[in-house]
Amino acid sequence: MFITLEGIEGSGKSTQITAIARWLKEAGYDCLTTREPGGTSIGGQIRSVLLHPANDDMAPGTELLLYVADRVQHLETVVRPALAAGKVVVCDRYFDATMVYQGYARGLDKKTILRLHDLSCGGQTPDLTLLLDLAPEEGLARAWRRIASDDAHAAESRFEKEKLAFHERVREGYLDLARNQPQRFCVIDADADTQTVQTRIETVLAHHFEIFS
Amino acid sequence: MFITLEGIEGSGKSTQITAIARWLKEAGYDCLTTREPGGTSIGGQIRSVLLHPANDDMAPGTELLLYVADRVQHLETVVRPALAAGKVVVCDRYFDATMVYQGYARGLDKKTILRLHDLSCGGQTPDLTLLLDLAPEEGLARAWRRIASDDAHAAESRFEKEKLAFHERVREGYLDLARNQPQRFCVIDADADTQTVQTRIETVLAHHFEIFS
Ligand SMILES: Nc1ncnc2c1ncn2[C@@H]1O[C@H](COP(=O)(O)OP(=O)(O)OP(=O)(O)O)[C@@H](O)[C@H]1O
Ligand SMILES: Nc1ncnc2c1ncn2[C@@H]1O[C@H](COP(=O)(O)OP(=O)(O)OP(=O)(O)O)[C@@H](O)[C@H]1O
Ligand SMILES: [Mg+2]
Ligand SMILES: [Mg+2]
Repeated sequence: MFITLEGIEGSGKSTQITAIARWLKEAGYDCLTTREPGGTSIGGQIRSVLLHPANDDMAPGTELLLYVADRVQHLETVVRPALAAGKVVVCDRYFDATMVYQGYARGLDKKTILRLHDLSCGGQTPDLTLLLDLAPEEGLARAWRRIASDDAHAAESRFEKEKLAFHERVREGYLDLARNQPQRFCVIDADADTQTVQTRIETVLAHHFEIFS
Repeated sequence: MFITLEGIEGSGKSTQITAIARWLKEAGYDCLTTREPGGTSIGGQIRSVLLHPANDDMAPGTELLLYVADRVQHLETVVRPALAAGKVVVCDRYFDATMVYQGYARGLDKKTILRLHDLSCGGQTPDLTLLLDLAPEEGLARAWRRIASDDAHAAESRFEKEKLAFHERVREGYLDLARNQPQRFCVIDADADTQTVQTRIETVLAHHFEIFS
């Protein structure tokens, strides 16, 4: 069982993944939580290339291939071994994020992205994708508060870089994917306090794992 | 006009590319010589990830994607702009090297490699590929002499790593590609002194550019 968590920045993925893991353990499942960019050492090195400010001449195709390379490494060395060992794997962001950020929001050809995924990740599709849906204004405000409390300067530069319209396209892209694959996606209204969102997720999980308490 | 040079290690690609550039200039062509891994800064960073000794847990698919990412960056920022400016581009190794090293020699699925190339490099196929054909024993002996004169220790570790049978598969892979695409490939017998090989290449170029002196 492969579960992914998706949603715009600040929608609560990292916050909720802990509660999901706890719920799964209590329900008797052996569970691994992980995230993209994967915790792999090679993934980290690829990330540094992706994020280095000097690399502003990176071709869009190069960027896409590096994200996929990171994913393949994570898939082969973390996700697949855990699935093979019978664990439930819960991953914070996966392929849908690439489709939405590179395809819907940055305008790369969506068919190419999908074919590249099929080719590289052998079509490893999640069994369930929880989409935490939230308006970008609210998500960015949450993220802003999170960063501002650490480092006001970092917060500022982040808001300069990523515009609201961009996050609007990300949100709409996610909702479009969910509309087209209703059997895999489950849209969670994330515009509520943490406990309420958690209860909504747990209801979905109970339904999915056929556990009714 | 996009020309690539292929062949096993030590077959003389780097030696001959200078003479090719000189010949093209004398024939009146504006020419750019380049090589893979491309001279791009991002390509260099990708290479470091590929070659770092600590990264021995790299999945084969990750490795393949990183090579292609390097190629896309080189193609978009170096090769295509030069071709668009009307230059003849001569590139020391290109896609055939990936097909031969990853596919024929390391056993990755060749169809996947080809489809990944078509997807990522928009099927940018060379107009002419000069394959410098040489027995691995001779190529490795040449490479050995080259390295040994610089650094005996590096030479030794290289010979430990890459076995003769591997290079035999590389040579056979190249010859197989040439057999299947005779209109693009031109096989040059590289088992001769530098001047003789150069004359052989120049004969092919003269034929190709319809310059008969
Ligand atoms: N339901 C909620 N209501 C209010 N604040 C929340 C809620 N859920 C999470 N937060 C807070 O909002 C901030 C962003 O949440 P979180 O880091 O979980 O989002 P995320 O989806 O993982 O974002 P990113 O994509 O940037 O990793 C955190 O400071 C978190 O404590
Ligand atoms: N025809 C030749 N006869 C003998 N030695 C040669 C010949 N051509 C090149 N060499 C020498 O062999 C060595 C390898 O040649 P070169 O570097 O051109 O090969 P290469 O195909 O570029 O190898 P690599 O794939 O490792 O880059 C060099 O030291 C070069 O001087
Ligand atoms: Mg997060
Ligand atoms: Mg060379």
